Amino acid sequence: MVNIPLLLMGCGGVGRQLLHHIISCRDLHSKQGVRLRVVGVCDSKSMVTIRDVLISELGDEFLLQLCKVKSSGSSLNELANFGECQVFSGQEIEKKVMDVAATLCRSSVVDCSASSQTIALLSRVVNLYCCVVLANKKPLTSSLESYDMLVSHPRRIRHESTVGAGLPVISSINRILSSGDPIFRIMGSLSGTLGYVMSQVEGGRPFSQVVNAAKSLGYTEPDPRDDLSGMDVARKALILARLLGHRINMDSIKIESLYPVEMGPDVMPLEEFLANGLPSLDKDIQKRIDSASSNGNVLRYVCLIEESRCEVGIQEVAKDSALGRLKGSDNVLEIYSRCYSEQPLVIQGAGAGNDTTAAGVLADILDLQDLFQH
Amino acid sequence: MVNIPLLLMGCGGVGRQLLHHIISCRDLHSKQGVRLRVVGVCDSKSMVTIRDVLISELGDEFLLQLCKVKSSGSSLNELANFGECQVFSGQEIEKKVMDVAATLCRSSVVDCSASSQTIALLSRVVNLYCCVVLANKKPLTSSLESYDMLVSHPRRIRHESTVGAGLPVISSINRILSSGDPIFRIMGSLSGTLGYVMSQVEGGRPFSQVVNAAKSLGYTEPDPRDDLSGMDVARKALILARLLGHRINMDSIKIESLYPVEMGPDVMPLEEFLANGLPSLDKDIQKRIDSASSNGNVLRYVCLIEESRCEVGIQEVAKDSALGRLKGSDNVLEIYSRCYSEQPLVIQGAGAGNDTTAAGVLADILDLQDLFQH
Repeated sequence: MVNIPLLLMGCGGVGRQLLHHIISCRDLHSKQGVRLRVVGVCDSKSMVTIRDVLISELGDEFLLQLCKVKSSGSSLNELANFGECQVFSGQEIEKKVMDVAATLCRSSVVDCSASSQTIALLSRVVNLYCCVVLANKKPLTSSLESYDMLVSHPRRIRHESTVGAGLPVISSINRILSSGDPIFRIMGSLSGTLGYVMSQVEGGRPFSQVVNAAKSLGYTEPDPRDDLSGMDVARKALILARLLGHRINMDSIKIESLYPVEMGPDVMPLEEFLANGLPSLDKDIQKRIDSASSNGNVLRYVCLIEESRCEVGIQEVAKDSALGRLKGSDNVLEIYSRCYSEQPLVIQGAGAGNDTTAAGVLADILDLQDLFQH
Repeated sequence: MVNIPLLLMGCGGVGRQLLHHIISCRDLHSKQGVRLRVVGVCDSKSMVTIRDVLISELGDEFLLQLCKVKSSGSSLNELANFGECQVFSGQEIEKKVMDVAATLCRSSVVDCSASSQTIALLSRVVNLYCCVVLANKKPLTSSLESYDMLVSHPRRIRHESTVGAGLPVISSINRILSSGDPIFRIMGSLSGTLGYVMSQVEGGRPFSQVVNAAKSLGYTEPDPRDDLSGMDVARKALILARLLGHRINMDSIKIESLYPVEMGPDVMPLEEFLANGLPSLDKDIQKRIDSASSNGNVLRYVCLIEESRCEVGIQEVAKDSALGRLKGSDNVLEIYSRCYSEQPLVIQGAGAGNDTTAAGVLADILDLQDLFQH
């Protein structure tokens, strides 16, 4: 039986879903000869763990209780009296994580947070023979220095769920690269929200109306400008570009925001943006749609990586390309390489949601199992 | 440096391309800390290897010479005087392979042949801690008994290139399954030849004309009936179905042949089939196309796996589905699971060709590297 000790950072939606997946896969994994042993869980303020991480684990009942406590908005401290566990907080957390990692010799540290506070810690554990699995994009989109540190042992890191949720994007790119097939172009729609918006406006609905509809469907962040700024897509683009070997930072990426600076969150309150800002953008977007349409094309908010170019923004694409045919909130990625030169390799499907994202994280953890063989 | 000793079976187009890929990736793999060491190559009649497989290898110059000898149609015996090597033939081969495998303790045996003669040998080496990488479909589509033997150590076998050439089909399905996301339906077009034929006839060209055109473009086997029989697609369907846990054999698959039995290769000579047989099929196919078209659909030769169903044949599919939009000789696979339930996960791209197939094999070999760590 291969035993994988696991330390989870972040117990928001994705982290909790991961715990649920782990518990419901117990039988499946046992048949495959693998046992995932959760030895610690942290959020930004606290950490719960157990006394002897070499032999014990946080039981499934405890983990379910943890999920319940967290979804009700309470603190991990509430678990202190529920079953055998130790609770640490504040500055103790980092020390305890290092301690657990050093004791275990080899473990997997899984970052399902959305925080940049984990970066320093991850860079340290990776040198303690730890494997790192990320759903969190921040550690890979910070400085090149910390990126290099994180990927210095490439077999010990997985981060499928940082791009396209569980879609097999990173694993497929890694396969292509390791076979010596050079990728010369990647183009994709990597935001379910912007994919939905761009395919909806194409039918003639005003931009402002579509964004409002997306907001009430729960497709956008509470402030839709978090999506419309393009920053989230830019982070994914940076992750892909660095994977292809580009030595760039966030500031090298050309990012098109779908609203002007004077409508930014620091300048304009959300209500005003929704009521007056957004509608004032309708005309311009409609003009661009009409112009694309007269070329037989449609507009998509894409990420494009090619030679030294890395940019995210609105592009005209052929109506009958994989990108142009995209409907709804699916993600799609077109990869061009020597083997896929005329027609790209296309990967398409749901690229968001806690279930899918957590499933991608779990597949990554399982993919590390050979490193845990004795 | 991780050292992967490699024994190649089959040096036809794919096998030779693999050797070329390995040689041209030397620098890349060295940067990744991996060294592929080719210690033996077999074809159906002979085997070349070296005296001390623990420390030596067949050099790159030797391997290039081997490729040259094989592409000219000569025997591996010709290499006996070229550099340091040992040549074995006939019954000696199996004994020598076992010998090499036992000496190396852990090695990877790569089957790029198209033969069922390798099955017995593969089942034996897999018990010697060998890893197995297959482009050859036969070992996985023979009896359930030998299938079970081959996959008895699931982490030691890879076979991406048995379905869709280098397309990340098997690796993606394995990821989905290991994350506990149950796949309930797979539908795809897994033959570049039949994909081309079915998308071409849709435009009104007679079936016989399209098949002849595909033949002269080199898209079909020398006898196009090898493609039209559906047997090759059925093999891929069986591999996918078994991967999903279906305990079935070839004879459980419903296979639609695009020609009737009385036109089979044992009954009708190729020339007569091309001249008279094929054209007599035009009318019926046209009728089916018209009927589909009146429903707004198109015809595709698909593989369908769903619950206990596993079948390959012509199906009506929606014009605007990934399958319906397929043009040219690309493969496409739609995977439906809990995470991809309404919209499938779609993987699309070139699914044939020695370059792509060999790249898939090489990615598989690299994917095994953690098992070769000390």
